[in-house]
Amino acid sequence: MKFITLLGLIAGTLTTIAFIPQLVKVWRSKSAKDISLNTLVIFNTGVLLWLIYGIYLQAVPIIAANGLTLIFNSIIVWLKIRYE
Amino acid sequence: MKFITLLGLIAGTLTTIAFIPQLVKVWRSKSAKDISLNTLVIFNTGVLLWLIYGIYLQAVPIIAANGLTLIFNSIIVWLKIRYE
Repeated sequence: MKFITLLGLIAGTLTTIAFIPQLVKVWRSKSAKDISLNTLVIFNTGVLLWLIYGIYLQAVPIIAANGLTLIFNSIIVWLKIRYE
Repeated sequence: MKFITLLGLIAGTLTTIAFIPQLVKVWRSKSAKDISLNTLVIFNTGVLLWLIYGIYLQAVPIIAANGLTLIFNSIIVWLKIRYE
């Protein structure tokens, strides 16, 4: 596997799994006061567009990374609204 | 400009500027308790790798988006540590 492909896979994996600790933290603390809903909504919209971008190019890494990121962040949005 | 290029630019812009409301919120409230430091650190590491990826490919949109995201998120990390 080429270096640049590996670098992209690792970067994509990190920027995807990064949201799991935030999800767990809100789930456990039942508190999301300090988290900006605007940030979540704007970020999720961007990730949705990246997902469409990946589908359009049939680029599996982009589809996988943004698909998962969208799922994690949608759960965080739901928790944010629920515990607001 | 091709549709797909425009889509990527809009997606990159949204996933970059998305962090500004979070930065402003922490700055104003002086509170970051609910924000996961692990998420910030893992996400920033991923964004740094995307930046190196963009430099390697000399892809200006990837460099610009991830460079700005890294700056915004580094400020959020600094505010998080300062107001912890």
